[in-house]
Amino acid sequence: MIIHLVLGAPREEPLILDYQSGDLCVGVDYGAIYLLNAGYPVDLAIGDFDSVTKHEWQQIKKESQRVEKFQADKDDTDTELALLHALNLSDEAPIHIHNWIGGRLDHFLSILYLVYQERFQAVLSRLVFCSPKNSLRVYQPGHYQVEQDHPDNYLSYIGLTPIKSLTLRQVKYTLESADYDVPRALVSNEFLAEGQPAEFSFESGLLAVIQSRD
Amino acid sequence: MIIHLVLGAPREEPLILDYQSGDLCVGVDYGAIYLLNAGYPVDLAIGDFDSVTKHEWQQIKKESQRVEKFQADKDDTDTELALLHALNLSDEAPIHIHNWIGGRLDHFLSILYLVYQERFQAVLSRLVFCSPKNSLRVYQPGHYQVEQDHPDNYLSYIGLTPIKSLTLRQVKYTLESADYDVPRALVSNEFLAEGQPAEFSFESGLLAVIQSRD
Repeated sequence: MIIHLVLGAPREEPLILDYQSGDLCVGVDYGAIYLLNAGYPVDLAIGDFDSVTKHEWQQIKKESQRVEKFQADKDDTDTELALLHALNLSDEAPIHIHNWIGGRLDHFLSILYLVYQERFQAVLSRLVFCSPKNSLRVYQPGHYQVEQDHPDNYLSYIGLTPIKSLTLRQVKYTLESADYDVPRALVSNEFLAEGQPAEFSFESGLLAVIQSRD
Repeated sequence: MIIHLVLGAPREEPLILDYQSGDLCVGVDYGAIYLLNAGYPVDLAIGDFDSVTKHEWQQIKKESQRVEKFQADKDDTDTELALLHALNLSDEAPIHIHNWIGGRLDHFLSILYLVYQERFQAVLSRLVFCSPKNSLRVYQPGHYQVEQDHPDNYLSYIGLTPIKSLTLRQVKYTLESADYDVPRALVSNEFLAEGQPAEFSFESGLLAVIQSRD
């Protein structure tokens, strides 16, 4: 079971999710409308809903399983509140964050910056930031294998902090125990072959791994 | 005089620059084609040009003032090489980086990550990362004023590192000497009035200021 968290970034094309029966869909603010318009169930609609029309608000109330409405003037962002609620829906289900890129650059970065917040450190391994041609996962120090999401995907390692002793194996461009004093983007690495997971390890810092294709 | 650095991120709409006579235009890889197709002069076309067709390559050679072509297999990215060349065109002109968002998320982050590189620290104050509804500037510790680019703009302060003693004044939500141990995004602040610059200061770290509108 996957929890799909659909945010409200402006979009022109219909939403397409990797949805399977039994998954849960959470619509954040205008994301609830995107879900409904694309024909997905809305298990939870959450936000201050200051971006929806009166008509859309009626639609959300009528067609969502559950609605949580907050004051617009609050300390947490809609996305932070939605993620806290999503975590309450399950103790272990992966949370796929959709429709987070597009429109305002400050919103985009503030969503990526969730991964720095102390309160989300324990659940980082459950988060996948998705877009049609990209996926981003965040890792704490350790040793990992990465399965290829899609045969055409490139593989990029993005330090979100300084990184100590980064080793990359089972990829086209390997690396042994490299230290980076400032955040560093190592882009366009490649899987060796289909079905052959990449391996990496590091000793301190926070690392994003992005799979993406043109 | 402004140096416009136009990158090659995928785009569907024509390129529109804040171009004035006397400005210089640098097309990076497919960015050269975007410049030519939109009717701007190309003072310098630079890249490995592995993304352009033979016909487009002929067009670039014929219609650009100067062309620098590199091997595809090199240590620096096209954008890094282009920025180094742009810096040689003038010792002081602002450099507006256009068409850097869109398509691959790893490319987008690697371009933003230029601001962490030691070799670009001395010229950070000359860089403006532009998109149709966003501008991003990066600041080293100090005291600054920010002029509003557009009357509808929100103002966001994005720590690119931990930040010490951040003070925000002449804005809707003020702040006094706040410390952040991890990168933090403070979004959707507002200018007080048109023509009234915002003020901020901080003592250590690297801070991005984004102006954006919906």
